[in-house]
Amino acid sequence: RVDGKRLWDALMELAQIGATEKGGVKRLALTDLDRQGRDLVVGWAKAAGMTVTIDQIGNVFMRRAGTDDALPPVMTGSHIDTQPTGGKFDGNYGVLAGLEVVRTLNDHGIRTEAPIEVAFWTNEEGSRFVPVMMGSGVFCGAFTLEHAYAAKDVDGRTVGEELERIGYRGDQAPGDHPIGAYFETHIEQGPVLEDADKVIGVVPAVMGLSWYDCTVTGMEAHAGPTPMHLRRDAMQVAAKIVPEVVAIANRYPPYGRGTVGMMQVFPNSRNVIPGEVKFSIDLRNVNDELLNRMHEEMTAFIDRTAAESGLGIKLERVSYYPPCPFHEDVVGAVRSATAKLGYSTMDVVSGAGHDAIYAARLAPSGMIFVPCKDGISHNEIEDAQPAHLEAGCNVLLHAMLERAKV
Amino acid sequence: RVDGKRLWDALMELAQIGATEKGGVKRLALTDLDRQGRDLVVGWAKAAGMTVTIDQIGNVFMRRAGTDDALPPVMTGSHIDTQPTGGKFDGNYGVLAGLEVVRTLNDHGIRTEAPIEVAFWTNEEGSRFVPVMMGSGVFCGAFTLEHAYAAKDVDGRTVGEELERIGYRGDQAPGDHPIGAYFETHIEQGPVLEDADKVIGVVPAVMGLSWYDCTVTGMEAHAGPTPMHLRRDAMQVAAKIVPEVVAIANRYPPYGRGTVGMMQVFPNSRNVIPGEVKFSIDLRNVNDELLNRMHEEMTAFIDRTAAESGLGIKLERVSYYPPCPFHEDVVGAVRSATAKLGYSTMDVVSGAGHDAIYAARLAPSGMIFVPCKDGISHNEIEDAQPAHLEAGCNVLLHAMLERAKV
Ligand SMILES: NC(=O)NCCC(=O)O
Ligand SMILES: NC(=O)NCCC(=O)O
Repeated sequence: RVDGKRLWDALMELAQIGATEKGGVKRLALTDLDRQGRDLVVGWAKAAGMTVTIDQIGNVFMRRAGTDDALPPVMTGSHIDTQPTGGKFDGNYGVLAGLEVVRTLNDHGIRTEAPIEVAFWTNEEGSRFVPVMMGSGVFCGAFTLEHAYAAKDVDGRTVGEELERIGYRGDQAPGDHPIGAYFETHIEQGPVLEDADKVIGVVPAVMGLSWYDCTVTGMEAHAGPTPMHLRRDAMQVAAKIVPEVVAIANRYPPYGRGTVGMMQVFPNSRNVIPGEVKFSIDLRNVNDELLNRMHEEMTAFIDRTAAESGLGIKLERVSYYPPCPFHEDVVGAVRSATAKLGYSTMDVVSGAGHDAIYAARLAPSGMIFVPCKDGISHNEIEDAQPAHLEAGCNVLLHAMLERAKV
Repeated sequence: RVDGKRLWDALMELAQIGATEKGGVKRLALTDLDRQGRDLVVGWAKAAGMTVTIDQIGNVFMRRAGTDDALPPVMTGSHIDTQPTGGKFDGNYGVLAGLEVVRTLNDHGIRTEAPIEVAFWTNEEGSRFVPVMMGSGVFCGAFTLEHAYAAKDVDGRTVGEELERIGYRGDQAPGDHPIGAYFETHIEQGPVLEDADKVIGVVPAVMGLSWYDCTVTGMEAHAGPTPMHLRRDAMQVAAKIVPEVVAIANRYPPYGRGTVGMMQVFPNSRNVIPGEVKFSIDLRNVNDELLNRMHEEMTAFIDRTAAESGLGIKLERVSYYPPCPFHEDVVGAVRSATAKLGYSTMDVVSGAGHDAIYAARLAPSGMIFVPCKDGISHNEIEDAQPAHLEAGCNVLLHAMLERAKV
């Protein structure tokens, strides 16, 4: 069994880097704070006797040797970047649970046949740079290193520059790194486990996701003298599209999701009719056919709205991954470890994307969820119980040991 | 008659300070560029033999002595601050037309009984700081100097600090400065004159205006795992209010106006359901009773939407002035000057607020409009014809001479 207190203390220490007033964490990908967080975790891994390699997209692999070191490693991991108003657990838990597994094996002098690796992947959140789950996406070949390097934040800084600046642009070619099996522990980020009063969520699949940038182009003009019928008001046309995103999601229950999380208005002056409004659209579903229908309804609605309003509307898909069912062997290992340890459990479909969906393209993969308070995540008040975090880590330990062999 | 070319050249020279790539001007109130613009105009005034005084809110008065210098001055003026995507003419024309009147009087050695003054008022646009028309508002006592000093831009800098910083916090107490009559020339900023093919707009009145900040408070949560029916999505509630602003304006034709020009989303991340959305509302009408009804409909709609959605919505009125009918004597002077000069003319209600509405609280006031291209203003492509600008300036010259007496 792992040391729950040590796991909790590591989480709290990492959460101090970028801590916010409201008790959350703001540690955006590839900022100075991200570098500090990375340095702390790498330091811990080295102290635990692990060797560290970094690839060209900044993914970090921390390795505990196996007795047969030629075997592909049994890997676990997640990310340590956060949302602008993020919490202490999203991602960080998965990385530090992996570290706690290694510390526990060290405590008991347990050697595994296959090596154990703990990874943290670059820019999982996708807040500062798109695509989301960038490090694992490049690693599995979902998109190229060049594409990722060229991604810009709102201030025009690129991933390539920022990786270089914080000293985490490694040498290893992404993907040039075998994986035997991949596990990821994570807070659920939704209310299902808490509502059902279960401790461990076994994750059969992750919803697919489609992200768009939508830009409405009208004509700036003065808010006073310009008669209502002569306006080309980009804000008013955007406000027609925003509710449709939710309406489409509601037409595909129970797993349809639709969100407009980001909006920028140009020139953003109160007495100027907006000439341009740019906003994001996030559509999800666990069924790819339904996600495609949602995509088609969105596209058709945009075309109709453009025709009716006479304004230009550009809809650009900026990220997409299909729903990802996990591998039965790995899901099975999670199930049997949970049963052995006697935790209450249920299956939970993941609405959030995770690095595990990209790892799943290269190796048998699966995930372990634990409850989070009120199902709230991507919020500074995100919270989780130490006992639940410990339970998830114990399941991880036993499931990994089953694969890595003692 | 004035020198149209000299007027045009002055406009083009001033427009170089803060010139934008698209041919417009960005010279926000109390920035370094505003200081440069102010210095240029003050330099021209001194070269034309005028004396300059500055009051505590940064209004600048440039005076040409009269033969009876104890008479209250006949004043003209406007503003030289611009929108973030502003044009070359809005405001600037009114100030430089005044300067051109003085230069013309100098050329012909004409002395007036009453002194002539040309003013430029601080922060007319209200983009960087609210209230709008700040300098003339403080001057006429519509709100206090302290209130204006405390106004903050989005970066938290105050009007008081910024005035001090650019060296335009003068000594004179605002309003401690008599006015005999006030004229203001301005581009129409709407399409009426151009549509009717008239050169001079006589302005009987300016619409009243009500400005609000509206803040919707929901709950940030993850865009993927959070089921649709459990969301408290501030963006979706904001998107219900935005079209109502236009619907209300459309219920009070022909002078009802409604605009949402500004929006800020928090935390503005594409996979976070927005926890807070803040936006501006601009309502106008030329009839105060109708403007009040629009205000009441807005308030009632907000209350209903808050009750229906269960989210918190705060509506705060941040600016208000009632419709302003101008003084018959000054409007008459504009009419007779236009007739004498033989320009085509019509009456045009002003949808934009102007410093003249505050001057009107202290002295008989009126305005002269000239056409602008396609009725477009608050846009970098704002344009006007040299011949029209010259015509408006000629009307100003003759109307002012009628009041100031030769
Ligand atoms: N787990 C997580 O928050 N991933 C970010 C990508 C997403 O929006 O699902
Ligand atoms: N003339 C002008 O653009 N004034 C700004 C205030 C308003 O929005 O009417």
